[in-house]
Amino acid sequence: MKKLINSPERVIDDALVGMARAHPDLLVVHTNPHMIVRADAPMRGKVGVVSGGGSGHEPMHGGFVGKGMLSAACPGAVFTSPVPDQMLAATKAVDGGAGVLYIVKNYTGDVMNFEMAAELAAAEGIEVASILTNDDVAVQDSLYTAGRRGVGVTVLLEKIVGAAAEAGATLAECQRLGEKVNAQGRSMGMALTSCTVPQAGGPTFDLGEDEMEIGIGIHGEPGRIRMPLASAAEVVELLAMPILTDLPFAAGDSVLAFVNGMGGTPLIELYIVYNELTRILKDKQITIARNLVGNYITSLEMAGCSITLLKLDDELTRFWDAPVHTPALRWGM
Amino acid sequence: MKKLINSPERVIDDALVGMARAHPDLLVVHTNPHMIVRADAPMRGKVGVVSGGGSGHEPMHGGFVGKGMLSAACPGAVFTSPVPDQMLAATKAVDGGAGVLYIVKNYTGDVMNFEMAAELAAAEGIEVASILTNDDVAVQDSLYTAGRRGVGVTVLLEKIVGAAAEAGATLAECQRLGEKVNAQGRSMGMALTSCTVPQAGGPTFDLGEDEMEIGIGIHGEPGRIRMPLASAAEVVELLAMPILTDLPFAAGDSVLAFVNGMGGTPLIELYIVYNELTRILKDKQITIARNLVGNYITSLEMAGCSITLLKLDDELTRFWDAPVHTPALRWGM
Repeated sequence: MKKLINSPERVIDDALVGMARAHPDLLVVHTNPHMIVRADAPMRGKVGVVSGGGSGHEPMHGGFVGKGMLSAACPGAVFTSPVPDQMLAATKAVDGGAGVLYIVKNYTGDVMNFEMAAELAAAEGIEVASILTNDDVAVQDSLYTAGRRGVGVTVLLEKIVGAAAEAGATLAECQRLGEKVNAQGRSMGMALTSCTVPQAGGPTFDLGEDEMEIGIGIHGEPGRIRMPLASAAEVVELLAMPILTDLPFAAGDSVLAFVNGMGGTPLIELYIVYNELTRILKDKQITIARNLVGNYITSLEMAGCSITLLKLDDELTRFWDAPVHTPALRWGM
Repeated sequence: MKKLINSPERVIDDALVGMARAHPDLLVVHTNPHMIVRADAPMRGKVGVVSGGGSGHEPMHGGFVGKGMLSAACPGAVFTSPVPDQMLAATKAVDGGAGVLYIVKNYTGDVMNFEMAAELAAAEGIEVASILTNDDVAVQDSLYTAGRRGVGVTVLLEKIVGAAAEAGATLAECQRLGEKVNAQGRSMGMALTSCTVPQAGGPTFDLGEDEMEIGIGIHGEPGRIRMPLASAAEVVELLAMPILTDLPFAAGDSVLAFVNGMGGTPLIELYIVYNELTRILKDKQITIARNLVGNYITSLEMAGCSITLLKLDDELTRFWDAPVHTPALRWGM
């Protein structure tokens, strides 16, 4: 295992402290329990927006804590759900009196623990609502999931709902908006290589030198098909078509096209993937009104990519465009 | 070779077109000869700032084209210098009447070709000045270099000089500023793994399963020492000490600390490296006034990192903080 770490046990603590030291203007890090909180939390009279999940997907979620996006993030161990205590502590830290919204990716542990945290928060008099993301069209049910997995849409949803909360939307409005984003977004991913969880010490799965896996999960969960390597054009076709037919997206639609790297794929390749995606969407008479290309929801050093399409309307576009200042996403300030 | 490409021959063209389609508001891409130019070039009365070099280091340089940074970038084939024709075409495209500054990393091919381009531009009546970056303290002379290699400081220099050009500084002022940045910055890198140039098809060098290379170049050029894997704390010590003693940096100095990923290293590890760096600098009574953590000057999918320290003063800090809007660096707009 080749990693720039001090020991597998210290990965999360060391990284969180490093993150806090790099971004003291934006966030505060607590290591017991682990949470990353906006430096100016709680925002009086505004909805707090909390997400979390296993670590190893950086910059998601901690890199999205800041102005106009998340109020707090709860990082679990690598690929392991955070626990209700973390979520409750984060909830209290960001509660500004207008309630707290949880953004939960659909993995069994995350769902269960955020539900428990919501009950604990309610018992302390904090109003909590939740949004579940389940945008991965690759498979129904999976290694850690009943139903579909939550993946790339989570990033877009955190930006859009975070902007609404920043603008003073109510808890109910934030929840409705988040449900709309999840309903209008679809994703699918693929892997060229596996990745290694520090505490496991070896690859999460094996993939032959001439193989790739289409429909992979962000924890290396099995996808739809393992097949011989193909060209970028073929790979994008294999990812985009199931996404397009699932919603379905149709001629005349306007979308945000998000090409995400899994962590170990050079940016140059992500632009090649984006280029292929533009060809397919043009052919379908779908307009790309906004785009995002880069490493935002990763699987450690896995080589591969995912594609997310989000159907835009004026409301989603306005909140997407709103100023944001976090370690990983920043514009307008 | 596992890459998301269509063919080794098409990598640069496909990626450049994808980049143009992702950022039409910022840049225009030409494929014959290859260049990435600010959408609003030439800026009348302002110095044009041009850089370039082999591809495979993305986002450098093309991802730094935009408002407040580069006016144009000339990408060569992967790890191969661009040619004078590209540089001349870029020079003409960005010449706004105030001259054009070349930012050149110290590699023999880049130096020679930018010199030739400067002569061609002069023959066409365009005033050109050049800055050479040679901040890598690892080795004197190298596989493609006489003297020291230009690495991480190049990113910081492009931001700082780009801000000065945007603010209306003269060609001579931009050149003086660039020389100051290069003089006040030092870098060193390391690799855990090699990388594969698409047209080569196999790893650039071999590194054992239990080995790392300290002082590596961004094209996989040999470093100072190949040694057994060590902890992040030890690795950072091995990189930071030669940097600190070379300038030298001293107690009371204020620096920009830049932890750069080589492409295949997860962000979580870069924050661990940053954390170790903060410990060392604190111990030396050096203040980190600004920082940058992420993948900015990469070597395809190489796992590893580099550290760059730049001694700051009010002038450099002001231009670093100035608004920038490029695909890879953005703030204040």
